[in-house]
Amino acid sequence: MNFLKEKDLNKQIKSKSIKELDELSQSMREFLIENVSKTGGHLASNLGIVELTIALHSIFDTTKDKIIWDVGHQSYPHKILTNRADKFSTLRQYKGLSGFPKTTESIHDHFDVGHSSTSISAALGMAKARDLNGEKNYIIAVIGDGSIGNGLAFEAMNNVGKTKMIIILNDNEMSISKNVGSLSKTLTKYSAKTNFINRKLTIKKILYKIPILGRIFKRLKDAFKEMIEYNSFFTELGFKYVGPIDGHDIKELKNTINDVKDYNGPILIHVITKKGKGYKFAEEKPYLYHGVSKFDPTVEITEQKKDYSSVFGSKLTNIAKKNKKIVAISAAMTDGTGLTSFKEKYPTRYFDVGIAESHALTFAAGLAKAGYKPFIVLYSTFLQRAYDELVHDICMQNLNVTIGIDRAGLVGADGPTHHGVFDLSYLTHIPNLTIIAPSSFEQLEKALDFANTFTSPLAIRYPRGVDGDYKNDETLKLGKSKIVKKGEDLCIIGVGKMLNTALEVNNLLKDKYDIEIIDAIFVKPLDKNTILKSIKKAKKVCIIEDNQMIGGFGSLILNLISENNLEIKTKIFAYDDIFIEHGDTKLLEEKLKMDAKSIAKTINKWM
Amino acid sequence: MNFLKEKDLNKQIKSKSIKELDELSQSMREFLIENVSKTGGHLASNLGIVELTIALHSIFDTTKDKIIWDVGHQSYPHKILTNRADKFSTLRQYKGLSGFPKTTESIHDHFDVGHSSTSISAALGMAKARDLNGEKNYIIAVIGDGSIGNGLAFEAMNNVGKTKMIIILNDNEMSISKNVGSLSKTLTKYSAKTNFINRKLTIKKILYKIPILGRIFKRLKDAFKEMIEYNSFFTELGFKYVGPIDGHDIKELKNTINDVKDYNGPILIHVITKKGKGYKFAEEKPYLYHGVSKFDPTVEITEQKKDYSSVFGSKLTNIAKKNKKIVAISAAMTDGTGLTSFKEKYPTRYFDVGIAESHALTFAAGLAKAGYKPFIVLYSTFLQRAYDELVHDICMQNLNVTIGIDRAGLVGADGPTHHGVFDLSYLTHIPNLTIIAPSSFEQLEKALDFANTFTSPLAIRYPRGVDGDYKNDETLKLGKSKIVKKGEDLCIIGVGKMLNTALEVNNLLKDKYDIEIIDAIFVKPLDKNTILKSIKKAKKVCIIEDNQMIGGFGSLILNLISENNLEIKTKIFAYDDIFIEHGDTKLLEEKLKMDAKSIAKTINKWM
Repeated sequence: MNFLKEKDLNKQIKSKSIKELDELSQSMREFLIENVSKTGGHLASNLGIVELTIALHSIFDTTKDKIIWDVGHQSYPHKILTNRADKFSTLRQYKGLSGFPKTTESIHDHFDVGHSSTSISAALGMAKARDLNGEKNYIIAVIGDGSIGNGLAFEAMNNVGKTKMIIILNDNEMSISKNVGSLSKTLTKYSAKTNFINRKLTIKKILYKIPILGRIFKRLKDAFKEMIEYNSFFTELGFKYVGPIDGHDIKELKNTINDVKDYNGPILIHVITKKGKGYKFAEEKPYLYHGVSKFDPTVEITEQKKDYSSVFGSKLTNIAKKNKKIVAISAAMTDGTGLTSFKEKYPTRYFDVGIAESHALTFAAGLAKAGYKPFIVLYSTFLQRAYDELVHDICMQNLNVTIGIDRAGLVGADGPTHHGVFDLSYLTHIPNLTIIAPSSFEQLEKALDFANTFTSPLAIRYPRGVDGDYKNDETLKLGKSKIVKKGEDLCIIGVGKMLNTALEVNNLLKDKYDIEIIDAIFVKPLDKNTILKSIKKAKKVCIIEDNQMIGGFGSLILNLISENNLEIKTKIFAYDDIFIEHGDTKLLEEKLKMDAKSIAKTINKWM
Repeated sequence: MNFLKEKDLNKQIKSKSIKELDELSQSMREFLIENVSKTGGHLASNLGIVELTIALHSIFDTTKDKIIWDVGHQSYPHKILTNRADKFSTLRQYKGLSGFPKTTESIHDHFDVGHSSTSISAALGMAKARDLNGEKNYIIAVIGDGSIGNGLAFEAMNNVGKTKMIIILNDNEMSISKNVGSLSKTLTKYSAKTNFINRKLTIKKILYKIPILGRIFKRLKDAFKEMIEYNSFFTELGFKYVGPIDGHDIKELKNTINDVKDYNGPILIHVITKKGKGYKFAEEKPYLYHGVSKFDPTVEITEQKKDYSSVFGSKLTNIAKKNKKIVAISAAMTDGTGLTSFKEKYPTRYFDVGIAESHALTFAAGLAKAGYKPFIVLYSTFLQRAYDELVHDICMQNLNVTIGIDRAGLVGADGPTHHGVFDLSYLTHIPNLTIIAPSSFEQLEKALDFANTFTSPLAIRYPRGVDGDYKNDETLKLGKSKIVKKGEDLCIIGVGKMLNTALEVNNLLKDKYDIEIIDAIFVKPLDKNTILKSIKKAKKVCIIEDNQMIGGFGSLILNLISENNLEIKTKIFAYDDIFIEHGDTKLLEEKLKMDAKSIAKTINKWM
């Protein structure tokens, strides 16, 4: 597979035969499995798109033609073909190759991405720019059937008009979980119909040889195709629809794309692929091989270990047994958010709405208005898509909705598009919203018990991964924090998992200072009494939170001090006002001076 | 028209004849024109929906059947029919009738709203709740053809599946401006087709009388209808499509809705209405009569006066003359955002993307990546819909995009769904974003000059309405504030238009204190040097901003003080952590103690 590391494969493949390209695809698959098994990363989506990527690069010149990869977790084959195969040993590691397209990484990458469904909007912007410039390059958005069901993608398609651009719909019938939604069903219908026609026509192939019959059959076939095209969702939006075609047949891909690429308007090419293609375990359980840690490629990955997500899922399933009004909602993330058991146990009370975070929240608002108690579980970074719905539909009406905010804080290898470091900043100012940041598995369970009887909007934000050393399984009371350790010289407030860091800091400094440690528990409402008492005593307060500095928990404490006209020395440990790169979470914390050692050092100097 | 004020008109009309209902609709129109001309409010949309509202209420019982009005600015006829006609003299005034549906106002209102495209999501939530309860009531979402093109509405339709619910598509070919987008064109196509068939069939009516021919024609008609239905965008999403029908023909409306209301799945009824119907001026220029202030109903409203929006639009048009890379984007708000002249002057460089704020931003990101300089102009409250796109697509890539944030601060009569009091809180923590809050028309112009040569993400936030007394037309420098008046005892920083308030406060207190007044100009980056110098001198600082207290400009100042280990007394004047009700802006400021007099009083006590 060494030849994969040769220079400019994207150019080389333009002159290769189909047979050679097929061999290349085989090598790329082996390369992907071998490398991702060592570094972790996205696997199934990349295995599914090898041939399509080869076909695209054998037709287009990505130094001027722009391929916009939606989500971007399927861009590994593209990276291999554009001079980055030699960097795969550094994939998703600090300062190493990104797991997503990055314009700073290669001239072949044209748009940074990580969230879903941005590709058509971005591509349309680029196409309009091209047309204003009077240029002729191709603009191609490659988007999955899960992502195309998102509102942003729809808004973009609705706005394309007559603009010349190509959408490649990479249809594998999957988001990360099995895909849902009516559009997805419609796509399946299209596939089924054409397969039918193709089968019919295969039988008749021999008759084709007879000239007149051939022409008749051709006409019939065209008529059929025309009909299918006319009935398409996409033609109603003004697209020419082509397909579906086999996304693992390089010849068919090349021929079709070449045939239609100069169509003078918007065209959608429907390509059927198989997620995990060519790797048995990933084909069978693509959701297990969507995003993986290091693994042994010879044995199947076992299901996930206990983490915050699974604790949330189990506990919710548990309380839903008694409270029949509880319903759960996820946005194409049943597994990732730990809701599989809930779904299995209460199928009628479980709603996977697809990659549709905005709808998830307003849908929940409707359920709540009608007397139900929805729990929506989303990743911190994806809840950003539903900020308005949280403000306008849920909090303004003060509805009985709980949001589980998973992957809060640093997430590690997925990097800047996925770190959940803004949520406290975009949540704390929303009226009527209560926010809990549990500091342990047990406290997360208690937070769900609290949620069970609470009737206003509630956000519970918790990190990716496993538990720290600190344990607290006391029952939660609205707006009550907990003094974990008494002290006189300094008060440190830890938010969520950062309470563990606060306790480590105390360990490092305990011989020099008598530190009071508070577990915030509630970010909002603040436990003003407890906190004011503590900080008045010590006259010095530090906050440690895994959120951006501006607008986070620290700001609430500064407001509290201001409101009370106090003179208190304050020090906030939070993330800088930057987009944080990818890398191991522990390493990033050190680099950002947010590990216990760095914090202890800073405090020592500050005191 | 007094009978409109009778009790339970919604019940009374159930037994009325079509003739009586037609008379009722005439009375309601007169009532609307008379009342809205006195109070201001939404007019054109309400005039367009009179008959549809009557038809719905004559069929459904809204104490148990739930009509969810999308956006809600068309709910006046519904309010008239549900015991609120007598409150129309208080419309949109402090403590008066809301301009939108309000569940606290009537048992006939089932969901609070003000932003577009939430109705299908909310209705779906209610329908799922109904089905889980085993109940039988009707759930009806009434949505416009502009709103249905938004991503949220699409996500909801894609998620409806087989759920029994009714969508009434109120198609007037308008958002606030003329509607855009492919779906809108498709809708027009549907209308045209059926009209064609209907015309054909009318001609043949006499032949219908002959039994056999009648049957044949009937079959032909059905076949045609079937074809149209099959080709519908909505059938591809799993809906039964019915229509289009005349939205001003109560008989046709009643018959059609009655015929199909029990369909056991999702059904979409396509209704054609005319915005402004029955009032000549509003029919001709519906955008002028969308949201109106008090007016004389006998003469046509003249175009808008000079306000922040028009200043923005003129200046942008002006700088776009030299800078050919400037393009402008609006989300169905060409007039409201002052972009009409830009659109007329540079039609190829102007993009109205429809009610699609999320797409507007990512589309702009694509244009910027390709070398253009997009200016997106949105209302503060609607930018909430694009928070993720701002973070993930524009700021993460540090793109050359400027966002004009209109209607920042209190907006008055539109109330809690429309006040722009959260923007600083949801913007200040986004890395790479520069934020300017101009304090006068002239400074807004200078901000646009600044934007013209600036190459990173920039937000310019400015209020609704007219200028204050303060003038400043100095050239802006990145991160530079301006000391408007020197002083020793106290430093007051005014943000945006609130600088006028700061100056008024100074006038009230100038005999007692020597106050230094700073025009912040830049919210981010802060002018740390100037501000630190001033507050170190005075040891006391007040901030006056028209944003929610938490996470706003004040928080940035508190952070600055904390970072510099200073002991400074601070007082932030900002809006409380509540959703602020509707009412006159000046009156609301007084009630919230954010007027100069109240602030001066508080400062006096605090000093």
